[in-house]
This record gives sequence, C-alpha cells and structure tokens, in this order.
Amino acid sequence: MATPVEITRAPAIFPLDRWYVAGFSWELKDKPVARTILSRPMVLFRAQDGKVAALQDRCCHRDLPLSCGNVEGAGLRCGYHGLLFDTTGKCVEIPGQERIPAKACVTAYPLRERDQILWVWVGATPDSQPKDEPPAYRFHSDAAYRFGGDVYHYDAPWQLIHDNLLDLSHLGYVHLKTIGGNPTLHMNAAVKVESTEETVRVIRLMPESDPPPTYASAWPFAGKIDRWQEVEFHPSHCAIWTGAMDHGTGSYDDPERHGFHMRGFHGVTPETETTTHYFWTIATNPHPDRTDVTTLVVDQTAATFEEDKVIIEAQYRNQMRQGPGPNIDIHVDAGPNRARRLITKLRQAAAAV
Amino acid sequence: MATPVEITRAPAIFPLDRWYVAGFSWELKDKPVARTILSRPMVLFRAQDGKVAALQDRCCHRDLPLSCGNVEGAGLRCGYHGLLFDTTGKCVEIPGQERIPAKACVTAYPLRERDQILWVWVGATPDSQPKDEPPAYRFHSDAAYRFGGDVYHYDAPWQLIHDNLLDLSHLGYVHLKTIGGNPTLHMNAAVKVESTEETVRVIRLMPESDPPPTYASAWPFAGKIDRWQEVEFHPSHCAIWTGAMDHGTGSYDDPERHGFHMRGFHGVTPETETTTHYFWTIATNPHPDRTDVTTLVVDQTAATFEEDKVIIEAQYRNQMRQGPGPNIDIHVDAGPNRARRLITKLRQAAAAV
Amino acid sequence: MATPVEITRAPAIFPLDRWYVAGFSWELKDKPVARTILSRPMVLFRAQDGKVAALQDRCCHRDLPLSCGNVEGAGLRCGYHGLLFDTTGKCVEIPGQERIPAKACVTAYPLRERDQILWVWVGATPDSQPKDEPPAYRFHSDAAYRFGGDVYHYDAPWQLIHDNLLDLSHLGYVHLKTIGGNPTLHMNAAVKVESTEETVRVIRLMPESDPPPTYASAWPFAGKIDRWQEVEFHPSHCAIWTGAMDHGTGSYDDPERHGFHMRGFHGVTPETETTTHYFWTIATNPHPDRTDVTTLVVDQTAATFEEDKVIIEAQYRNQMRQGPGPNIDIHVDAGPNRARRLITKLRQAAAAV
Repeated sequence: MATPVEITRAPAIFPLDRWYVAGFSWELKDKPVARTILSRPMVLFRAQDGKVAALQDRCCHRDLPLSCGNVEGAGLRCGYHGLLFDTTGKCVEIPGQERIPAKACVTAYPLRERDQILWVWVGATPDSQPKDEPPAYRFHSDAAYRFGGDVYHYDAPWQLIHDNLLDLSHLGYVHLKTIGGNPTLHMNAAVKVESTEETVRVIRLMPESDPPPTYASAWPFAGKIDRWQEVEFHPSHCAIWTGAMDHGTGSYDDPERHGFHMRGFHGVTPETETTTHYFWTIATNPHPDRTDVTTLVVDQTAATFEEDKVIIEAQYRNQMRQGPGPNIDIHVDAGPNRARRLITKLRQAAAAV
Repeated sequence: MATPVEITRAPAIFPLDRWYVAGFSWELKDKPVARTILSRPMVLFRAQDGKVAALQDRCCHRDLPLSCGNVEGAGLRCGYHGLLFDTTGKCVEIPGQERIPAKACVTAYPLRERDQILWVWVGATPDSQPKDEPPAYRFHSDAAYRFGGDVYHYDAPWQLIHDNLLDLSHLGYVHLKTIGGNPTLHMNAAVKVESTEETVRVIRLMPESDPPPTYASAWPFAGKIDRWQEVEFHPSHCAIWTGAMDHGTGSYDDPERHGFHMRGFHGVTPETETTTHYFWTIATNPHPDRTDVTTLVVDQTAATFEEDKVIIEAQYRNQMRQGPGPNIDIHVDAGPNRARRLITKLRQAAAAV
Repeated sequence: MATPVEITRAPAIFPLDRWYVAGFSWELKDKPVARTILSRPMVLFRAQDGKVAALQDRCCHRDLPLSCGNVEGAGLRCGYHGLLFDTTGKCVEIPGQERIPAKACVTAYPLRERDQILWVWVGATPDSQPKDEPPAYRFHSDAAYRFGGDVYHYDAPWQLIHDNLLDLSHLGYVHLKTIGGNPTLHMNAAVKVESTEETVRVIRLMPESDPPPTYASAWPFAGKIDRWQEVEFHPSHCAIWTGAMDHGTGSYDDPERHGFHMRGFHGVTPETETTTHYFWTIATNPHPDRTDVTTLVVDQTAATFEEDKVIIEAQYRNQMRQGPGPNIDIHVDAGPNRARRLITKLRQAAAAV
C-alpha cells in the first residue's frame, strides 16, 4: 500500500508519448483489473460489448477504486454509490439524481488490443493522443507457433530487467537447469551489438555446442547444434529469438532458418520508479514427433524467469541497502549499456516537456 | 509497529475534553488490554476489586508496556522488574527498594463503565477532568432487547466511517446480501437532515417497500413494509435506529412505534490520525414466533460491517496513493458533509487550546 | 529490506577499531552466510581450504549480494555473471575475459576463528588493521564442560540487551519457569558493581536459597544452596558465570569452587542502529549421576532467552512509539548505567575519528 510520503515525492520520469504493455487479452474477463502503469493507477476492463478500456482507478465522487466495482453493459459501475462510467471516462448515471455535473468524469487512457497484447498510450500531457498504432506481434497469431505466458510483478526498477534480457551470458550461472549451464560456452560466445535511436540488437552465436536440457527435451537433435540468441530491445518490450539447428545444416543468416525456435515476448512496463510489471510469453514450433512440447517449453521458461526474478530483486534490494556501485563493466555489458543510454535520452526528453 | 519517524510528526488534532468509547465491559477479564486512543497508548484493565482503569501504557522505569504485565489485587504489576501501579497511576511498590520516588507514576485517564460501554475522557490539557458523565445507552440494558457486537480495527481515518454511517444510500450497492439491495429504492428515498452544534440527524423513509433479506428472516411481515432509517451522529458515536412495520399499520412519527427494530450503536474512536477503532453493537426485539433472531441479526450485521470495512479501507488506500479528490458531491452527501463541518469546528477549537 | 530512505541517513556510530562477534564456527558449512555487522553488509564463508573470510556482500560488477553465490575452491563465485573472488576480496576470474581490472575487488574484513567463535575486526578507517587478537573463551574448549547455543536476531538496539544482561533481577518476573521465580530473593540479593575503562562487573549472591527449576533438574543438591551470578561486561560481549553449591560447602571467593556451573557467552553485535545479533552459548559441567544435563540446560536457557527477546522487543517498540522516558532509576540499575556510560565514551571517541 502506498503511503502519504510517496504522494509528496516528485513523479518518476519515464519515456512518454508512447505505447506500453498494459496486459494480455485473456486477463480481461468479466471483472475489472487494477493496474498501475508508470505511476498512474488505472482500471482495465472489457465492456459487455467487447470494447476494452483503461480509466483512472478512482471514482470522482468519493475516491473508491473503480476496480472495486462491476462491469455493466457498456461501462463500469462504482461499488460504493453506483456511479456508472462509460469507456471514455464520462459518468453516465448517478443513481437517484437527474443532473450529472460536467465534472463527473475520470481520465481515460487510450487502450488497444493487438495480437492478444493490450497496449496503453501514456502521454506527456493530459490531452496527448496516439501518434501511431502499437506494434504487431505475429507469433501470437502464427499457426506454426504455440505459446503461453504470464504476468510477473517485480520489486525492482524496469532497467534491471532490461540489463538481464540484453545480456544472456547470465544463463551460464543462473539457468543451469533449463536453457543454460555450460558457463564457458555462454561467456565466450561471439557477440554482435547494433543500435538505433529506439532499438538495440544483441546477437550471440554458439556454433557446434551441446543442446541444453530444454532444447534436448523439446527437439530431436542429432548431436551438436548451432545455437543462436537474437535480442531486439525496444523501450517498451524485448523480442528475443533463440533456437538451434543441427550443426552445419543451415545458416544463421537465413531469417527462415529451420530447427527449434523459442520466440520470447517481454513487455517490461514500469509500475512505479521502483517496481515493474513483466508481461512475458514464449512461442515455439512444436516438433511433430514430440508431444506436449508447448507445455514443456512454457513451464521451463516460467521456471527460468522465476530464477531471474530472484536474482534481480536481490540485486535491487542490495543496491537500496548499500547504494549502487561503484561498478566495473565487463565484456558482456555492451548491450545493456547501450539500452541504458537510450533510455536516459528518452527520459531527458520527457523531463524537458 | 510505529517507527521513529512517527514520533517526530506533529500530533493529530482531535476534538478534546470529551468522552470517547474505549471498549466494552466484556473485554476486561483477568488480562490487561493495550489500546491506543487518539494517539495516546493506554492499557485498560479491571482490578480484582472490579474497578476499571486506563493508564499510560509505559512503565516509568524502563518503558515496557504495562499491558505486558499482570493484574494484581487493586493494581497492575510491570512484567520486567515488577513495579506495581494502582488505578490512579501511582507506583505503590518497587521490589527490593524501600523508597518510592514521587516521580514513580504514569498518567491515568478517567475511565467510566456505563451500559457495558467503557468511556475514556481525553482532555485538552494533562489535568483536564471530566465536566460531565458519559451518555447512557438504554438498549444494552432494556429487557425488550437482545444485542451482540464486536470491535473492528480500521486502517482508515475515522471520518470515512462517519461518511459511511451518515449516508445509508450505499446499502443498495454494498450490502445486497443482508439489509440492502434494491438500489433505486435506497437512492430515491425521502431524506431529511437536521443538525445542532454537536449532532447531525439523517432520516430516510422507505414506505411500501419490500423487506430485505435480514428483515424477512427476522420478522413475519405480511407483505410490503414501511421502513425507516434514523441516524443520530455525535462526534464520539452514532446511534442508528432502523426497522420496519407492516405497510400502513403505524406512523413514522410514533417514537414507540411497533414492528421490527434494529438499534445500532457505533463507537468511532480514532486510534491515530489514520487508523480507527470501531466498536459496534446491534440490538433487536426478537419476535416471539421466530427463534435465534438475535444470532441472525448479529451475524448478518457483522457480515454487513465487514463489507463496509473492505470498501472504506480500499477508499483510504486509494486516497493515500492518488491524493484525495477533487471530488464531486451528490444528493446523498448532505448528512456526511454537515458532520465534517461539525468535526472541523471542533478540531479548530482543540487546536486553539 | 532496507529502503532508499535509510541510505541517506547518517551512519550509526559504534565503538570501532575492535573485534565484534560475527558468528560461530559451525555456521560456516558449504554455503555463504549473509550478515550485516555495524551496518556493514558482509558475506561470511569458509573456503574449501578451510579458511574463513568476511567480504562486503556486493559484487563489484552489478551489485548482486555475493551471498547469493557459491563457495568454489579458495574463493566465492558470484551467482549472476560468475566473477570469482578470493578471501582477500580480490577478483581472480572474470569468465570470458582475459584482463581483470585493478578495481575488480570488494572490501575484506579481518575475520578470526577462536574457540569456535568468529570475530570480525571493524575499523575506524578503511585501512585499519587489527591491533591485537580476539579474546579466548576457554569454556568452548574445556573438556570438563559441554555447551550449546544459538543465534537470535533482535528488533531492538544492542544496549537494551546490555541492560538486560547486567541486571539479573528481572529473573524474578520474566523467568519464573526456569532460572528465576522467587522475586523477593532476586530483588533483595546483595549486589556488588565494579568497573574499568572497558569492563563492568556485577556480582549478586543469594546464599541459603532454594534451587530454581533448572538447577534442581540438573544437579542433585541436598537442600538449600549458595547461589551466585557474576556478570562480566565487555563492549563486544558478556561472560556470565552463574551457579550454586550446597549451602555452606564452599566459598564464593574460590575461583575453582565446586558445584553446578552455567557459563554463558553472550556476543551482542549491532546489526544496525536499531537491530542486533545475539550470539549465545551456555556451557555446563554435567553431573555424573544425571543424564542429558547439557540438553536440559541448553533447552531451558533457549526458552529463557526467548522470554528476554519478547520483553526487550516490546520495550523497544514502545520507546519508538512513545519516545523513551522520562525514566526513573531503581536500585538494580547501577550495573546497566555504568555500561551505558562506558559505551557513550567509546561512541564519542569513534565519532571524533
């Protein structure tokens, strides 16, 4: 629960005027969902006409969270005195009263649903409207893939998760049981880092290596494998394409390369300056000769991401306890450091508004 | 547990030189009870001679709460080094030492027991003494009534509970299962609001209405009922008289009207600026043809008040998280707003002392 | 978990350039142990060559606690990216990288192991080195004695524990079931208090008294006993020698006196300004005619010290809630007050550095 102290604190500064992941389609059933995004308390809901909406999570009458209320018809009704709001945030009914004051309304945030991802527009100003549409993510809709995922809550700031996703060398020490192990392999992999104004790409190749546990269970490899990890970082999310093919049977440069694929989607959305929502899915192309591959891949990925959560939250608690650094950089930090510079620029731009 | 930070905070301001509810007679058995009232940590106990007392809950020797000690004879003995205090707060024994220093004493607060309610006098100055006796509450002693109740702890400031008790329109949305439901009826009821320097009265009448679940189970109504809700607000407590009679069989103006009665006592006592003790009882006149009416009424009232607690604590957390308001007022707010103005005046008077 | 607020707080001031108890030998098995000593977060571990070490509990790369890592060979490997540190805090391996920057190191604290007690040197300056060796404690190594103990964590500052150990009069009220009871006896015992620059001694004699429960079960006394309590206070620990012999069969002045002995070691080490590590053991000389005396004495001592913990934490919470005092002193406070003056002097000296 937030405390009065926090109210008086200066608001955190995040990149604004952009889409952030607010959730997944399957989260919005008949009940509203409370979720704070970039320190803005929101209630997400799906009206009975199927439309999704994000409103400020506070009734304008007596401050009850609207997420304590109920979806009714095309709107959301407050659970205390029954004020009814539509998906634009306008109060359309005050029980027992004819006149509805013009001030009877709550902030509405543009919300889009695309490939089962819910995207919310967070503007730099109250009247900021979307400049574009949120990105597509085809692996949630591609028949060749099956996927599953979850929503994790982190007691750590979002950039520690960026660091983790952009440097997969930690697999060697953190994820021995699933996709990692073999530290020397991971630490010595050839790494290529590229970046633009809005993206960072890190590519790590591990030719002629041994398949890690998850790979071996999911795909009938002949022996040694050529393995890749391609991380594409965006301020709002990462797309991580990992996989492998039998050694020497294809090219890393072929965008349609065959073999075993794990396509990870990672929506990393600040809840507050110090806490984060982590929306992840993993999509894979199940091998015809293996059963339950999707379940296997999703379960082992969940276990893997829980290992990351333990590490990252311990890292953050330690920074809070001892203050961060001074830190030394090592060879694996090139990708994470570029992402940090990118975010810093965007934060400065947001602060300047 | 309080933190050092809180010590340095300016003390909350409450109406002073008056009686507040500190508990119920049946709470004081052989063990002392720790209870903070208006930010004053107190220990309540019943000495073996039956006398009740309220002392500062800190031994003057080494600060152990006296509530960790034991009732002994006419006093309370500290559980660390055995200092013995009488009901006036005077130390009457220091084990192993002849002389008892004059400073060996703790603050005593005037405590009265009346109709099974414990009332404590909280003065504006350390030497303030009661100017009057605490009010009687006859429904705890009237043979025509049976009652039961409980003590709830609220993580919310007391005035949010006043708001709730003075506006029973929320029954339509919060208490569907017991005394509520039928929102239109509640929201459209005729309401009369009166007030004085120290009280606010809100009367809501619902003639020719349907009996809600609790009423129907407790009383053999013929059909439609004439239902009333009379809320009498005082700074320290509310007396809420609700009930109903068969439609057209009596007058709302008759103070001795027949039918089904629920007499609610609500002691609302600030623990701190942001937390509250809620001492409630419900008394009813059991119908001879129905069994276990008291149990039914008390259990359903408890369920009802737990629903209020959920709403009010969620409302307060939300105000802390987002800051209060700006709020709009609606038709049901007349009573609550008068009570707020009344308390504001009393707080200003207390601050001026 | 520490919060950002605490970081900005001025560091607590403790006596420095001295040894504090950091733990017991048997705590260091194959896993590292995280322990904050005088607000310095440390990781304690025993390398595979048997050497013990205390390092700052933060990897110099990305701040993960090294206590989340693993002991490997002569060092400790970080659990995130695998940096390996030796017992001097020097990073000796960065996986996947040839060059190890000079800055790749963490603070090491001098740690000694003596009579199964781990002592850490906390200096007034970063480069402060031990001026002497930590004290011996022969009762952990003396064949005539058996002992056991434990490590308790206190949510209370260390000096409240000093007060408790230096005033055993509280046995009469707090420890009725084991070594106490009979308050009048304890409160009226003859007490002698002596002190030096670095120690306080409190001696309490209870001639011709009745054996308390623990004594009676552990030793076949004939009847009345001559009982003693000798508390020797040092800033880092207390040695408490209690025991009894059959009445009139020996002299309190004989350092080799016969009878039943309980030798308590009490390492009292600040974790932070407001929390404390309490490292205790109890050693006894088992009577040949009694079985399981050690288990009995250790178990009953544990129960006794848990009673102290309850009282002291309640006392501290109350001081935080109400502010300390004003307090009155009574006859039993002479010893505790001298220890407080001693610590105050040492704190002033440390603050002056």
